[in-house]
Amino acid sequence: MVMPVDLASRIAASARMTSSPMSPEIDDWLRGKRRQPFESADITLEELTRSPGWRFAPDTGNLHHESGRFFTVEGLHVTAERGHPAEWWQPILVQRDIAILGIIAKEFNGVLHFLLQAKMEPGNIDMVQLSPTVQATSSNYTQVHRGRAARYVEYFTQPGRGRVLVDTLQSEQGAWFHHKRNRNIVIEVTGDVPVHHDFCWLTLGQIHRLLHRPNVVNMDTRTVVGCLPGTVSEPVGVHTMTEILSWFTGHKSRQHLSARLVPLNRLVGWRRDDERIARDDGGAFSIVGVSVRAQTREVTSWKQPLLAPHGLTLAGLVVRRMNGRLHALVRAEALPGYRDTIELGPTVRFMMTDHPTTPAEHRPEFLDHLLSAPRHSVRYDVVQSEEGGRFRHARTRYLIVEATDDFPLSAPPDFAWISVEQLHALQRHSYYLGIEARTLLLCLDSVSGPDTDFGFPVR
Amino acid sequence: MVMPVDLASRIAASARMTSSPMSPEIDDWLRGKRRQPFESADITLEELTRSPGWRFAPDTGNLHHESGRFFTVEGLHVTAERGHPAEWWQPILVQRDIAILGIIAKEFNGVLHFLLQAKMEPGNIDMVQLSPTVQATSSNYTQVHRGRAARYVEYFTQPGRGRVLVDTLQSEQGAWFHHKRNRNIVIEVTGDVPVHHDFCWLTLGQIHRLLHRPNVVNMDTRTVVGCLPGTVSEPVGVHTMTEILSWFTGHKSRQHLSARLVPLNRLVGWRRDDERIARDDGGAFSIVGVSVRAQTREVTSWKQPLLAPHGLTLAGLVVRRMNGRLHALVRAEALPGYRDTIELGPTVRFMMTDHPTTPAEHRPEFLDHLLSAPRHSVRYDVVQSEEGGRFRHARTRYLIVEATDDFPLSAPPDFAWISVEQLHALQRHSYYLGIEARTLLLCLDSVSGPDTDFGFPVR
Repeated sequence: MVMPVDLASRIAASARMTSSPMSPEIDDWLRGKRRQPFESADITLEELTRSPGWRFAPDTGNLHHESGRFFTVEGLHVTAERGHPAEWWQPILVQRDIAILGIIAKEFNGVLHFLLQAKMEPGNIDMVQLSPTVQATSSNYTQVHRGRAARYVEYFTQPGRGRVLVDTLQSEQGAWFHHKRNRNIVIEVTGDVPVHHDFCWLTLGQIHRLLHRPNVVNMDTRTVVGCLPGTVSEPVGVHTMTEILSWFTGHKSRQHLSARLVPLNRLVGWRRDDERIARDDGGAFSIVGVSVRAQTREVTSWKQPLLAPHGLTLAGLVVRRMNGRLHALVRAEALPGYRDTIELGPTVRFMMTDHPTTPAEHRPEFLDHLLSAPRHSVRYDVVQSEEGGRFRHARTRYLIVEATDDFPLSAPPDFAWISVEQLHALQRHSYYLGIEARTLLLCLDSVSGPDTDFGFPVR
Repeated sequence: MVMPVDLASRIAASARMTSSPMSPEIDDWLRGKRRQPFESADITLEELTRSPGWRFAPDTGNLHHESGRFFTVEGLHVTAERGHPAEWWQPILVQRDIAILGIIAKEFNGVLHFLLQAKMEPGNIDMVQLSPTVQATSSNYTQVHRGRAARYVEYFTQPGRGRVLVDTLQSEQGAWFHHKRNRNIVIEVTGDVPVHHDFCWLTLGQIHRLLHRPNVVNMDTRTVVGCLPGTVSEPVGVHTMTEILSWFTGHKSRQHLSARLVPLNRLVGWRRDDERIARDDGGAFSIVGVSVRAQTREVTSWKQPLLAPHGLTLAGLVVRRMNGRLHALVRAEALPGYRDTIELGPTVRFMMTDHPTTPAEHRPEFLDHLLSAPRHSVRYDVVQSEEGGRFRHARTRYLIVEATDDFPLSAPPDFAWISVEQLHALQRHSYYLGIEARTLLLCLDSVSGPDTDFGFPVR
C-alpha cells in the first residue's frame, strides 16, 4: 500500500473511508450513550439564584457564578449608524476564558481517525452528541476543580505529545456571545491512546456521513473538523506556517493580560494637575497640551492633548540567515491596547531611559546583544518618529543586527525565528505584526539592493 | 523596454530606482516645506480645557472633545496573571474611528511611484514629515468639517478610481492606543493625478533611501509602504485574494455597529421576573435556568443559566460553479459580539419564527431563493444543534442550494462569491469565517465523494 505523504492527501483519504474496523457500530453505541441517566430540568431564575452558585450582582444585575468561573450574563447596548433597528439592548453571554476544543488524530491502517466523545450537555437536543476529544476551559485544566480533570487534556496542554495539524482561534455566535473565541486544535499522535468507553475513533468519512443526520455531530466538533487544512501552498522558513500559527495561537490562548477601560480620574498612581497628567514616580509618558498654528492644514489653528513619552524607545531586531533564507527573531508581545492581546513585536522593545536604573537581571532578553553588537553586524540603525498627531516627539531607535555565531539557535518560548517571506505573508492579514515589527520589516527591505540581499553580502 | 508584469516584480523594479525625474530634489523640497510658518507650543491642560473644544467629563475625568470627534483620553486598568508588574493603571488614547492611511501609486516610465505628502503634525520632530497621500478619519470625509476636506480622499472613498495593491487593517501602538486600527491601503491609478505643491511622487527606492535618515518618513507612510505584498502564491477564484481582502477590509472600515457592555438590569425593553429574562414583545431568545443531573460528567449535578432561542435559525448558502471552481456566496455580517465587528456569514441567516410576521420587502435578500429551491438543486439540508453547554435547544437548519441559471451573477455590495479553496485559506486565520460559515464549509466537504465534486456531478 502506498502511504499518501502530504496532509491534504491524508485528509482526503480519511474522507473516502465511510467505515472503519476501529469504530463501534455508531448507531447502537450512540443509542446506548443516550440511554444513560441524564436529567435536565428547567428551573426558574429565582430557584437558580436561591441555590449556592449563581447570583445576580446587586449593583448591575449581571448574572454570575460566585466562584467567578464559567461565564456571566451581562447587558449589551448596540447602536447602528445605518440599518434597522438603529439601537437595541440585549443580554449577552460573556466568557473571556479561551477554551480548548481539541481533537486527537491517529492513523490506523494508514488512515487518519479522530477521537470523538459522546458528551452530555444540558441544552442539547437528545442530551448526548459527539463532541471533540476535549472541550475544556482554562479553569478545567489550570485551576483546582471540584470534579475530575477533563480526560485527554494533557495532549493539548503538555508540549510534544503529537504533531499539530491545525491550531487557530475562532469566534462563536456573535449575536449571543461577547468577543468569545475558542482554540480549535487537532493533534496527531503515533503512540497508544487508551480509549475511555465514552470515546470512539471515527474517520473523516464517517463524520461526514453523520453530518447528514440532525443533532449528532455537535457544534464544537463541527468547527474543529471544519478547520482541517486544504491544500494551500506556503512560504518557507525553518518552521512551517502551521507551526508558526500554532505557536502564535498558543500564546494568545495563554495570554494573561486583562485590560478594561476605567474613568481617567480613577487611575491609581497618576495625578492630574493644571499642567499635565503624570505618574508621581515619573513613568513612561505623560498627557500634555499643545497649541498649534499651521497655515497649511485644513484648520489653521487648534489646541489638543498629546501623549508625551519620556524618552527614546528601542525597537531591536535580531536577524540571521538559516537554511539559505533570512529569518528574524520576533516576540509574541502582549500589550494592553491590542484588540486581541498579542501581536508579533521586535526581538526587544525597551524604554532606553529605564536602562540606567534597570538591574541586569531585569533587562529584556537579548537587549545586551543588540546594544553591544559589533559595527559590522549592524544592518540598520536609525531613529524614526511615531505619529505626530497623537504623540509628542515620540522617537524609536530601529536597530537591526545580524546574529553573531555564538547567538543561540533555539528561541525561548516567547520568541520564534520566522523568515522574511513568512512575515510578509502574515502581514497581509490584520493583527499579526505590530507597528514596530512592520516598520522593521520595511527597514529590512530598505537595506536590500542589487549587490546585497537584505544588506548582507550575497553568498 | 520590457514591462515587468506581476506586482512583485514591479515593486522590486521600483525599489531599484533610487532617483526619478518625477521627483523634486527631495532635500531642498523638504527643507522648503519645513521653513513654512508652523508653530506648536506646549500649553497646560488647564489652558487646553479653558478654551473651546477639549473638556474633562465631570463624572469620569475622561478628556474628550466637545464635538465627540478626534479621540479621547481614558483610563485603563490592566491585570496580568503572570509577569511583572501584576497590575497597573494608565491613561490610554481611545479612537474607535478607522482612519484611512492611503497612498496613490502610478507608473511613470514603467516604474511605480508613490504620492507622498509633506505634512505637519504638532507632535512631529522637525514638524513636517512625509506622510501617505491621505490620512483621514471618517469625520474628515463623511461629516461636515470645519475646514477643507482631505485632498485626494475621493480616490479611497469612491469605488473604481484604481486598482487596489494592498488593503488591510493594522493595529498601532498597543501600549498607548486602545484597540486602535487603521486601514492601510495603496491604490494604483492610470489617469492623470494633479499634484498639489505639498505632494510629490517617489519611487520605492527613494523611500527606502529616505528611511536611512531620521524623522523624514512618518509612521503612517512606513506602515502603509510596509504592507506592499511580496510574492505569495494564491488560491484561485473569480476574485483574487487581494480583491477579497480589500472587500472585507472595506466592510470592516465602514462598519456602523457599536456595542458596549452595560449592567444587565439596565437593558431597555427587557424584563427579569422569577422565571426568566425576556423581552416584553417576545424577542429572539430568553435567559432561563436549568437543573442538571448527569453521572458521566466531572460534576454530577449542577444548576446553570442557558440562553434559550425562541425558534429555528436558517443558515443558508448559495453555491455555484464559476470558471470550473465551486464558489459560495458569503455575506459580510456585522454582529455585536464579534471581536472585530464583521465576519463572513452564510448567504442568509434568519430566525424562521420571524418569517410569518416579516413582510416580503423586509426579508433578507436571497431568502426566498433558498426556501423555494427545487429539490434537485438542494445539496445539503439538515438541522444541527448549537453548543448545549450555553444554549438551550438551539437549532440551525443548514441549507446549501446550487444557484439556478436565473440567479444573478453579480453580488450585492454586502456579498461576495468566494471559491471553496479561498474560504479554506481564510479559515486558517482567526475571525474571517463565522461559526455558521465554518459549519457550512464542512457540510459542503461532507457532500463530496468519489463520484461527485461537492455533491455536484463531475462535469
